[in-house]
Amino acid sequence: MRFRCQAKQLQDAVSIAVKAVSARPSVPILEGLLLETDENGIRLVGSDELMTIETFIDATILEEGRLALPGRLLSEVIRKLPDADVELRSDEWSQSYKATLRCLGSRTMLAGLNANDYPKIRDAEEKFGFSVPQDELRTLIQRTLFSVATDETRPILTGALLEVQEDRLIMAALDGFRLAVARIVMPEPCGEPMQVVIPGKVLSELQHILAGDEAPVDISINDRNVRFKAGRTLITARLLEGEFMRYRQILPTDWQTRVITPVSALGAALDRASLIARVGKNNLIRLNIGDNTLTMSSNTEQNQSEEEIGGVETEGKPLEIAFNDKYLIDILKAIDDDAVEMRFQTSVSPCIVKPLEGDDYLYLVLPMRVYTAPSA
Amino acid sequence: MRFRCQAKQLQDAVSIAVKAVSARPSVPILEGLLLETDENGIRLVGSDELMTIETFIDATILEEGRLALPGRLLSEVIRKLPDADVELRSDEWSQSYKATLRCLGSRTMLAGLNANDYPKIRDAEEKFGFSVPQDELRTLIQRTLFSVATDETRPILTGALLEVQEDRLIMAALDGFRLAVARIVMPEPCGEPMQVVIPGKVLSELQHILAGDEAPVDISINDRNVRFKAGRTLITARLLEGEFMRYRQILPTDWQTRVITPVSALGAALDRASLIARVGKNNLIRLNIGDNTLTMSSNTEQNQSEEEIGGVETEGKPLEIAFNDKYLIDILKAIDDDAVEMRFQTSVSPCIVKPLEGDDYLYLVLPMRVYTAPSA
Repeated sequence: MRFRCQAKQLQDAVSIAVKAVSARPSVPILEGLLLETDENGIRLVGSDELMTIETFIDATILEEGRLALPGRLLSEVIRKLPDADVELRSDEWSQSYKATLRCLGSRTMLAGLNANDYPKIRDAEEKFGFSVPQDELRTLIQRTLFSVATDETRPILTGALLEVQEDRLIMAALDGFRLAVARIVMPEPCGEPMQVVIPGKVLSELQHILAGDEAPVDISINDRNVRFKAGRTLITARLLEGEFMRYRQILPTDWQTRVITPVSALGAALDRASLIARVGKNNLIRLNIGDNTLTMSSNTEQNQSEEEIGGVETEGKPLEIAFNDKYLIDILKAIDDDAVEMRFQTSVSPCIVKPLEGDDYLYLVLPMRVYTAPSA
Repeated sequence: MRFRCQAKQLQDAVSIAVKAVSARPSVPILEGLLLETDENGIRLVGSDELMTIETFIDATILEEGRLALPGRLLSEVIRKLPDADVELRSDEWSQSYKATLRCLGSRTMLAGLNANDYPKIRDAEEKFGFSVPQDELRTLIQRTLFSVATDETRPILTGALLEVQEDRLIMAALDGFRLAVARIVMPEPCGEPMQVVIPGKVLSELQHILAGDEAPVDISINDRNVRFKAGRTLITARLLEGEFMRYRQILPTDWQTRVITPVSALGAALDRASLIARVGKNNLIRLNIGDNTLTMSSNTEQNQSEEEIGGVETEGKPLEIAFNDKYLIDILKAIDDDAVEMRFQTSVSPCIVKPLEGDDYLYLVLPMRVYTAPSA
């Protein structure tokens, strides 16, 4: 194989495909990034057991061929090249799988792997397909991914639920303590309802690859796999098997206390209060809701923080309730509105966080029980 | 004690004084930052065994007093305050040493320490004093500090030598493998010659406190201590005792091979070659000097890097020589000239790196011996 292209283009493509290369792959060949000549340029493929990322770049092909090169090392080497023409040449016919990368006065020789050992990519024969703008899919992921379970005791919860319901695309994620739901309106209605569970790690990489614009991402789904096509990049991943928790059943339908609060003031106060909560190692933040007042407090044995949040409106009963600071911080970081509504029932019931209008997102957090009897 | 000041000013002052507070102080009181009212404001003091940093800010004093507060926690709390008026009030008369920090709707109560336990600051009665511009002292430190020994087998080498010789202020640092020397011309000639050894850690903190402008830093020295006064900040530190290595004796006086090379091209090539050298875990970079050519190479068992440096001029014998990549990288990072001169004798003799003109800096690095017989 021998080709010539722009170093910057090769950098970008390698940095995308290498996201699927695991630091400790189950088989040695998956340390490699597959490069192969194509009609119009080069196809690059990175893969682990879970997902495969393919991408394409334009290149001048001087000799057809295919080769696998150590993905992470190749990525680091290419990142340090000057932005000039780069030529990659490999000796796959000699069975040594050596490749030479030349760029101006720089020459790097890397030991490759036999491309014939590289696994075939699963075909994602489409049973269900639709398109959404890349920025909107990215927003769905940003609003929910942080709530995906990180421990493996219930594997299905390490993924996020993707649902089509009428004209809505909905993503939901939950661990044992909190739930995040986000919704977008589909550009075109999508026929039948559908739901699948996509591994959190796949969504995390996808989020970085999606552009912040309205270019479409095409989503194809069958019984086992999902495929995202964004520009010249394809991500194919295995779906998680099993039934996702029926989260709608746990959403409270009424409230006793309601607070409308500015997001930035609440976030800044939380940032300070959580500093003390972390020194105290209890991570406990108390909210005290009065008549149009919201006070936040935290303490250690010796130190204490008290924050009055300005510009708050309340309705209903006064309430004292406590949360793990991390769960509130995660939610506030995901919200880009100026103000949000929080709904409560009692000091031992979940809290709901939602927009003042519409249903673009919804968060639910369980409170922490504290030894002082709450006033509810 | 009770005072009011701008949060931003208090932030800046605390972040300076806290640099002297150790993460694991030898006595509990040194976890604290001393705050005391002064005629015009507040004096803040942080200290460990090695050095003391004092600084002053303007404040409205509502009640005189002094108090020690946990330095690192205070620094974090203050950094998160909004930029508004802040009031600090403590109850030292009640022996509880509690302090309350108020800023808009935020109130933080911190447990303090008895200020009377705080150690007295050593007096640095001046035997020798002079001033230099802050930016120039900072440059001296940046050019040499990285060569200070990090291991404690020869404690004197964990500091840098500061010398006055005629109209020059010279700083030198060395570990067993390399030497760095930098010089500046003193604004005013300084009478008698002098030399002291300042701990590397002190210079490292001083470097961050010095401004990048021509404002003066006043340096006072006696037999045991050095004091730097920059603006409203004073750093007092104990000198290292013992005789520094007579480094002038190890500087070669002639050369067999001389190379003039652009710094940026050499740095970029080194960056790429060291990637392979690090994968190979030998950290070995070879230089091959020919007739107006300089080639750099490194390798692992399987991979190899070769770099031709453009725009190089050579003089004298061809030479092959090898270095630890880290030592060359450190030197190139410290140099802001476009080109430098490198001087060599044999493949087992030290290399000298110096400016094309003048003697603002000079580096010496020992080569690594490699198994292939060099051509010298």
